[in-house]
Amino acid sequence: MALIVRKYGGTSVGSAARIHAVAGQVATLRAQGHGVAVVASAMGDSTDRLLDLARQVSPQPVPRELDALLATGEEVSCALLAMALNDRGCPARSYNGLQLPVETTGVHGRARITGIEATTVKADIAAGVVPVLTGFQGRAPDGSVTTIGRGGSDTSAVALAVALEADECQILTDVDGVYTADPRVVPDARRLGRVSFEEMLELAGQGSRVLHLRSVEFAARYGVRLRVLSSFRPGPGTLIATEEPQVEAPVVSGIAFNRDEAELTLYGLPDRPGMALEVLKPVAAASIEVDMIAVNAPRDGRVDFTFTVHRDDYARTLALMNEVVAAHPGANLSGNDRVAKLAAVGSGMRSHAGVAARLFESLARENINVRLVSTSEIKIAVLVAEDEVERAVRALHQAFGLAAA
Amino acid sequence: MALIVRKYGGTSVGSAARIHAVAGQVATLRAQGHGVAVVASAMGDSTDRLLDLARQVSPQPVPRELDALLATGEEVSCALLAMALNDRGCPARSYNGLQLPVETTGVHGRARITGIEATTVKADIAAGVVPVLTGFQGRAPDGSVTTIGRGGSDTSAVALAVALEADECQILTDVDGVYTADPRVVPDARRLGRVSFEEMLELAGQGSRVLHLRSVEFAARYGVRLRVLSSFRPGPGTLIATEEPQVEAPVVSGIAFNRDEAELTLYGLPDRPGMALEVLKPVAAASIEVDMIAVNAPRDGRVDFTFTVHRDDYARTLALMNEVVAAHPGANLSGNDRVAKLAAVGSGMRSHAGVAARLFESLARENINVRLVSTSEIKIAVLVAEDEVERAVRALHQAFGLAAA
Repeated sequence: MALIVRKYGGTSVGSAARIHAVAGQVATLRAQGHGVAVVASAMGDSTDRLLDLARQVSPQPVPRELDALLATGEEVSCALLAMALNDRGCPARSYNGLQLPVETTGVHGRARITGIEATTVKADIAAGVVPVLTGFQGRAPDGSVTTIGRGGSDTSAVALAVALEADECQILTDVDGVYTADPRVVPDARRLGRVSFEEMLELAGQGSRVLHLRSVEFAARYGVRLRVLSSFRPGPGTLIATEEPQVEAPVVSGIAFNRDEAELTLYGLPDRPGMALEVLKPVAAASIEVDMIAVNAPRDGRVDFTFTVHRDDYARTLALMNEVVAAHPGANLSGNDRVAKLAAVGSGMRSHAGVAARLFESLARENINVRLVSTSEIKIAVLVAEDEVERAVRALHQAFGLAAA
Repeated sequence: MALIVRKYGGTSVGSAARIHAVAGQVATLRAQGHGVAVVASAMGDSTDRLLDLARQVSPQPVPRELDALLATGEEVSCALLAMALNDRGCPARSYNGLQLPVETTGVHGRARITGIEATTVKADIAAGVVPVLTGFQGRAPDGSVTTIGRGGSDTSAVALAVALEADECQILTDVDGVYTADPRVVPDARRLGRVSFEEMLELAGQGSRVLHLRSVEFAARYGVRLRVLSSFRPGPGTLIATEEPQVEAPVVSGIAFNRDEAELTLYGLPDRPGMALEVLKPVAAASIEVDMIAVNAPRDGRVDFTFTVHRDDYARTLALMNEVVAAHPGANLSGNDRVAKLAAVGSGMRSHAGVAARLFESLARENINVRLVSTSEIKIAVLVAEDEVERAVRALHQAFGLAAA
């Protein structure tokens, strides 16, 4: 029948009982006649425990050894899962990143997968054996163990699906699909049956932590059908695939938000060419990522410059900006790390006018002040005060008619 | 200067603080100009914790996956040790069994090392980098992870010393050398400055749990100088090397003992050829190792047959022997798992008469009954009741003049 790559996240394999439940699901899938390969993350909080161990030993662990350490988390869960499968009469073999191998670049901590040697795995599947591959890790060109960053097991699964030319890559997690908004914030949020890669990228990038961003890009590039499913409850989940042009996409598919934002404003900078560069150059040099940017219209030869960074980078960015304003008499700096971003996302947006108007209208009706705006073809994002974000999400969810019927 | 392989056991790397202490020792050795390669075991009780995890998932884990699971223990300790070394300005790189690789046979759980590819490690040492190799594990011919049995890290260290043609293989552990007897039983036991491989084999085999038996055989075969040192206290330790013929060996070097014995006696078996085989064949077929064996002189066409097995195998062996005696009317079976073995060991024994006499005399004086005897060229072993073994060890230690001067 079909060839399916299944990825189970840390919560899904978080205990011996969970591992048995997962083994049961995989054995059932195989008994239905499907070819199955599994990718698993480390058990529950084991990566955090390994990180803690590393910090006890070294304030700043050398990246090569940190990777060697962290990679053991997936080796443990995959060996246990292969044991549980064998116990059910479903032959299985675990493989770590060195074994296939999963070739990556040599950048420790955030390597990129360059290819998976799938010969062994293909032979296993042909022989009725379920290969169980450690997610999140691979082998550098020099033979060292690498990791591909947190959440990278999703990317491992997509890479394996590409290498196997699998029919579908199923990401099993603790949610049963992609929702029109976070159901913890919007009780009547609705599971989406299907979203496009682009929508998923915006939803994931805006804080819908269902899928790792890079895995979606990777799946989009290679046209892998991705499906998000719950490992706890049966159901069809959400299919993430190329857009079907015959279907009229809804104007807005979902409302995403995140609280990781911090906002900085430099007031009264001289209005001259190169000023934006002068502000952003030290930020870029410090490898701090800037998200939203706004410059107001100049007045009396002066401009105000606002941008957002991740909240973790707030203190460092503030220090850098203090130096910038010091160089310009009359300029001054303010910052706020109690802000949050929310976004309306939808492939239909590009063919519909009025989305922005409806968005601003519904926020105004709730007396929610919009601090910054950024737009893309399929998204309008706004920055609001953090304590207003949940109210804002609920307002937009209702304004765009996203609630369950 | 010298090229040294150092092996640190589980207790030596049992915590972040211990790992720092070990890193300090290794860095000092390297700062003295020595070439150093390190082999490390898993931290403290981590192997037991992994075994426990496996048992939670599977009553009888498939051996291939159990090996993949257990191997992570050493990967963790070696990555942490390499971090700690780098933090001290001592460049270091960890390697697991797949990476060099450490080639082994494919028998999971008790693979044998067939060779270590030392190119990478040699290049590291030449470049001033300390390679840190995971003990206990290797790569099967099919690329699977293997383990070489508990305590096998000692063997890994010796194999690395062979591959590197190292000047010395130092086993750092929680004791500071090999003693004339267990100091917990014999308070005036004395550390031996040097023992021969043969003596060490008998001492280790009899229960002096300082070094893994196979590592000593391996070192003897390749003439590797082995040294047992404490990782907690400085000191010269005990050198285990080929015997120096010019030195007159003491008659007895040490008294070893172990409590792992169980004794079975089959009474009144027919005295005919093949009877011993009939008794031992089912034991061998069940992969149960027999240690001491005794057959008494036949009387009235009947013989009694006594042998010992490991205490863990006692119940299984008893069941097998019940079947044997059932086949012979008039025969019956008795067993005792409260017995212990002790042995006087010494290279000098082969050139000295009277050791057995002195041994029996001193045990008789203590009213200790000898149940079974076995001898080798450099050893006399006897079986006694378990509750008498400590008294017996102290009596022999004194009788052979082994106490510290």
